[in-house]
Amino acid sequence: MTNISSHSIEFSTNGNTHIIDITHKIQKAIKDSGIKEGNVTLFAIGSTTGLSTIEYEPGLVGTDVAEMYQKIAPYSVPYEHNKTWGDDNGAAHLRSTLTGSSLVVPVLDGELTLGTWQQIIFIDFDTRPRSRKVIVQVLGEK
Amino acid sequence: MTNISSHSIEFSTNGNTHIIDITHKIQKAIKDSGIKEGNVTLFAIGSTTGLSTIEYEPGLVGTDVAEMYQKIAPYSVPYEHNKTWGDDNGAAHLRSTLTGSSLVVPVLDGELTLGTWQQIIFIDFDTRPRSRKVIVQVLGEK
Amino acid sequence: MTNISSHSIEFSTNGNTHIIDITHKIQKAIKDSGIKEGNVTLFAIGSTTGLSTIEYEPGLVGTDVAEMYQKIAPYSVPYEHNKTWGDDNGAAHLRSTLTGSSLVVPVLDGELTLGTWQQIIFIDFDTRPRSRKVIVQVLGEK
Repeated sequence: MTNISSHSIEFSTNGNTHIIDITHKIQKAIKDSGIKEGNVTLFAIGSTTGLSTIEYEPGLVGTDVAEMYQKIAPYSVPYEHNKTWGDDNGAAHLRSTLTGSSLVVPVLDGELTLGTWQQIIFIDFDTRPRSRKVIVQVLGEK
Repeated sequence: MTNISSHSIEFSTNGNTHIIDITHKIQKAIKDSGIKEGNVTLFAIGSTTGLSTIEYEPGLVGTDVAEMYQKIAPYSVPYEHNKTWGDDNGAAHLRSTLTGSSLVVPVLDGELTLGTWQQIIFIDFDTRPRSRKVIVQVLGEK
Repeated sequence: MTNISSHSIEFSTNGNTHIIDITHKIQKAIKDSGIKEGNVTLFAIGSTTGLSTIEYEPGLVGTDVAEMYQKIAPYSVPYEHNKTWGDDNGAAHLRSTLTGSSLVVPVLDGELTLGTWQQIIFIDFDTRPRSRKVIVQVLGEK
């Protein structure tokens, strides 16, 4: 029989393309659900966020990822979004749309099917510290 | 008991990175399905399309998103795709592969778990007006 | 009744943004599962991989896609990842995080709901040939 177990996790970020490893929180939600085979759907609430996977090491997480996004959608450009709303986070919205705020990862034997050097990350593209919420929904068989 | 309710929505676009808010159509499919807890899988049929989320406001939707994609994969470049097929939409294909044509959003209490300023969008990257179809599949418990 | 059928597919790549059409392997897993209505969740194991869709033709697959990624995250840049680990694949990690390693496609009448010119692709961004594994999980009703 298929079960659905919906949770949410909450945490604080520094903004400015702060990258947070949320793998352990997801794994805990899976364990709590008792589900052994199925998948977990993650969804980041907010239009300046991203979800993806990465090898979570300081070079990529502290420098390289931010520099890539700074080339694609620089923070300092006078976006129409900023002019219209007196805001300063147009780049954050663009990065979010490009990266995606949804992620589905299979679960086998009660474990995420990640590679050894592959972690699940939340990226906060906004230009200030934020409190964030990610929906974690485990679906499958116990 | 888990139910699956598969629909499709159809609409016309202007092409050229036209961004359409499809949130209300998705919400209606969820309501029609009667499913209260689960998720909705969206899939855009066609290789010059994209699905993502955004704060749907004129600055981002009318200008900023198009300018970001124009930097990443400009429409006017003489792509191999265009030379091979006498086509002009190589950029549209590249933008689609990068953006993704699939999106999964959790459903709780019969509602999408979107943020207040977070809408679901279809992007038509093609270089001409098109008729489009998105598969909307709701899965979960009533 | 909802069924879950979890498989994996394995194959070799050349690395260096090698793009492989895995559509037929996914379709075979769906057929083997006997599931007629539902969806298939794909997940690429490894932090230098990507999953997406494309019109699988030589112009895009052999040239255009690689050139787009070479603009976004060039292979030859001295990334912090490379300096820290004596590695040379920082660009591969960045491309993977941006592209995504997860994909969900609906299944109707036992078939993927792809467009006529829309195939499912695995991209190996790493800088050397690799053996790869993709989880293929079919979920739905028979």
